[in-house]
Amino acid sequence: MKNIDVCLSPDLIHLYDLRDKTAVVVDILRATSCMTAGFANEVQHIVPFAKLEECKKMRDQGYLIAGERNGQKVDGFDLGNSPFDYMDQSVKGKSIAVTTTNGTLAISKSLDASKVVIASFLNKTAIANYLRGVEKDIVVVCAGWKGKFNLEDTLFAGALVESLKDFARPSCDAPMAAQALYNQAKDDLYDFLKDSSHAQRLQKFNVTEDIKFCLQEDKFEVVPVLNGKEIVDLKRV
Amino acid sequence: MKNIDVCLSPDLIHLYDLRDKTAVVVDILRATSCMTAGFANEVQHIVPFAKLEECKKMRDQGYLIAGERNGQKVDGFDLGNSPFDYMDQSVKGKSIAVTTTNGTLAISKSLDASKVVIASFLNKTAIANYLRGVEKDIVVVCAGWKGKFNLEDTLFAGALVESLKDFARPSCDAPMAAQALYNQAKDDLYDFLKDSSHAQRLQKFNVTEDIKFCLQEDKFEVVPVLNGKEIVDLKRV
Repeated sequence: MKNIDVCLSPDLIHLYDLRDKTAVVVDILRATSCMTAGFANEVQHIVPFAKLEECKKMRDQGYLIAGERNGQKVDGFDLGNSPFDYMDQSVKGKSIAVTTTNGTLAISKSLDASKVVIASFLNKTAIANYLRGVEKDIVVVCAGWKGKFNLEDTLFAGALVESLKDFARPSCDAPMAAQALYNQAKDDLYDFLKDSSHAQRLQKFNVTEDIKFCLQEDKFEVVPVLNGKEIVDLKRV
Repeated sequence: MKNIDVCLSPDLIHLYDLRDKTAVVVDILRATSCMTAGFANEVQHIVPFAKLEECKKMRDQGYLIAGERNGQKVDGFDLGNSPFDYMDQSVKGKSIAVTTTNGTLAISKSLDASKVVIASFLNKTAIANYLRGVEKDIVVVCAGWKGKFNLEDTLFAGALVESLKDFARPSCDAPMAAQALYNQAKDDLYDFLKDSSHAQRLQKFNVTEDIKFCLQEDKFEVVPVLNGKEIVDLKRV
């Protein structure tokens, strides 16, 4: 059996040794759900940036630029942080530079891992199948919200622990708690999450459809992986 | 309504503003359960220390010394970290200097709060009643295990959120998740926890009776509070 652990916030990443492990980065609402949707829509590359200005400069190199801060699209950017933005015909075949509040930070803090993969409910089973093939210990890195624990990323972590229970054992309490929460919530994830802090924050921006979309399991089969500084679909590595 | 938040690990305490709030420190297995049991057994004061050597020196001032590292009693100390140590007749009326792996650190990181109280399942309702009287926002500070999330402290946090649901609303996702876990586990806390990492760690030391004892709700009515550097029963402040 391999081991699976869950880092509930990027602010706890110092407690995890990612070397020789696969890091599974998750920001369900909405960065990694967007990336999954984008690759399913034949996006070429996605390059994450921590800073808005660095991201913006990529437009000169032919990239579309996607920017979100505090749940809202950044003025002047081509895309916001809605999965529907990433599924538009105009995005097909393009490369995207992206910066978000939490998701890009979680990726940058996971670089010690031997492989970084990008996961969401939308490609849960594709990710689980990939991880079975890699045969390494796994750490799910939840993006959280500005360092704090969040419910939707933890639920996804629990879904992955549940999917892999014949392959990887929980190596600490966090994966066990995440799994228990997922099993409690799985029949109606939206109902379980609708009072959560980020869902409430997003509902103010009228993105209920985004939330419902991001909570669908196994809509896509892509496996986005970090390759150098770019995220690409595994089929293209 | 007041607000209740939960800090899942002392390593996340920088994300919480404790000023003008009540901090509820919890280390179910076993530091705060021991303290609760001790005050129920008429211990006078308990003084927490981060370092073994500082704790040891207190013997010269007439204190009993209690020390635990990695779940085991420190050689040469009067008490370990079992609640039964704190309930012995020889401890009645005495003062105790204590150092533990996680609990004393959680206390020292909570000093910005306007009041620090020491909670466990053993005095849950006494603590809830105290908090209703204080009328301040609440942050439950889970001691965790060496910075990591743990299940037993989170379950207690959830129990307190549940007890206070007509008085304080969850201000973030952590209290909501803790409450959901507690409601799932409450009919048999021991069964839910028995596979958790710390319970497994402790079972190696044959302390199953300690664990079962620490998971009993409302056995005692004491309310230990930090008063300067000393923890005392509220009745003695």
